[in-house]
Amino acid sequence: MLEQGLVLASDSRSNAGVDHVARVRKMFVWERPGERVLVLMCSGNLGVTQAVMHLLDRRAADPGTESLWNTPTLHGAAALVGQALREVHSREGPYLQQHNVDGTANFLVAGEIAGDAMGLMHVYPEGNYIAADDATPHLMIGENKLGKAIVDRVIAPQTDLVNAAKCVLVSFDYTMRGNISVGLPIDMICYRRGSLRVETYRHLAEDDPYFDMIHRQWGERLRRAIAEWPDPDWRQADDDYAQGRVPPAV
Amino acid sequence: MLEQGLVLASDSRSNAGVDHVARVRKMFVWERPGERVLVLMCSGNLGVTQAVMHLLDRRAADPGTESLWNTPTLHGAAALVGQALREVHSREGPYLQQHNVDGTANFLVAGEIAGDAMGLMHVYPEGNYIAADDATPHLMIGENKLGKAIVDRVIAPQTDLVNAAKCVLVSFDYTMRGNISVGLPIDMICYRRGSLRVETYRHLAEDDPYFDMIHRQWGERLRRAIAEWPDPDWRQADDDYAQGRVPPAV
Repeated sequence: MLEQGLVLASDSRSNAGVDHVARVRKMFVWERPGERVLVLMCSGNLGVTQAVMHLLDRRAADPGTESLWNTPTLHGAAALVGQALREVHSREGPYLQQHNVDGTANFLVAGEIAGDAMGLMHVYPEGNYIAADDATPHLMIGENKLGKAIVDRVIAPQTDLVNAAKCVLVSFDYTMRGNISVGLPIDMICYRRGSLRVETYRHLAEDDPYFDMIHRQWGERLRRAIAEWPDPDWRQADDDYAQGRVPPAV
Repeated sequence: MLEQGLVLASDSRSNAGVDHVARVRKMFVWERPGERVLVLMCSGNLGVTQAVMHLLDRRAADPGTESLWNTPTLHGAAALVGQALREVHSREGPYLQQHNVDGTANFLVAGEIAGDAMGLMHVYPEGNYIAADDATPHLMIGENKLGKAIVDRVIAPQTDLVNAAKCVLVSFDYTMRGNISVGLPIDMICYRRGSLRVETYRHLAEDDPYFDMIHRQWGERLRRAIAEWPDPDWRQADDDYAQGRVPPAV
């Protein structure tokens, strides 16, 4: 979440073990240009996340019900997602537990509704949620460890949208190298604050030349940087070493 | 593990929860110049790893026993470490389990013994072990996910020792940014194949100017690369988007 807007991205890999890998959509958009843009992203148990999406869709189809189409705030949207998740869990949870299936699911809810501030929320498996702010401008769900420090190092609230988008792609590339549960295609939306419409997006599939460029370039840049740095000042093994700063022989 | 030798590094952070953080040594050297260099590194339950080190030390002090001082091969050394770990586990394991304490510990055993090939082994918590080879030249224990892909991207068996050492420092810096259970100082040994002695090492403490340089530089290089790359070719939200490649509004 940036001063200029939001960079939102999701991968498409789903797996139930290494021999059961599928491609699924994890990003969903509710857009009424000029009035609201809501983007949901999900991770976790696919049966649970699809059931939540189904419930949200069914309510959204009924104009008499509070739904993602008419809730007036982003907090309202996050609460609706949390409520739907709790309903699915109370219906499905006991059966999943009987079979020792992990029914955990997480959601990100992001966007802007006319009259309300732009925002980014994380809905936890328990149905409660937190909002991103300037101190923690980015939120991640799913495999959220590997690529986090790249985003931490590069992105601040002042970063411009396009550079932030490029950084997010580096973070995804790094994550995919280390965890086969994350994979292309990547769905990506670059939302400009106040625009109240999805102006630009990318769907980056396996053969995307731009993603290939980023994949090659950042590794190449890192290799070049390492080669260019001066060598460390190695100590000879007779000063600190003998004094046990590196553990001495027994 | 490189054609030129070995780059070995360990951090010094130990924790039993965020309010119980300590600094411990995780690298131990058995060196008899011209005859053997054995380096042990450990991760996991500190009570278990210290008990294993104590057992190995006690045996090493008795010339009549097979120990890290007289075992003729690196496989022998790895087996001795695995055996010591099994002994500690059979003594301590049941008590740790009673209190739901995780007694898991992992070891790396690396080095060279005259008459045997240089090598690098990972001793698992169960006491068995595997050896690194050209296809998997690097092994990590402890927090082994975050920094792995940096090493994967940069280091091959042909990489020279010093550049590999710099890359390992980048990997540590990245890991420490993402996981507070990893922290300075770093102990690092650069072992030249066939030398049979520890010629060069570094102990990088909190204020180390070289590590600071690497910390600043790689983030700076990444930021610069991102700023220099061309912008992605954003799609307008009316071609693929309307056709549902990015999920359409309900």
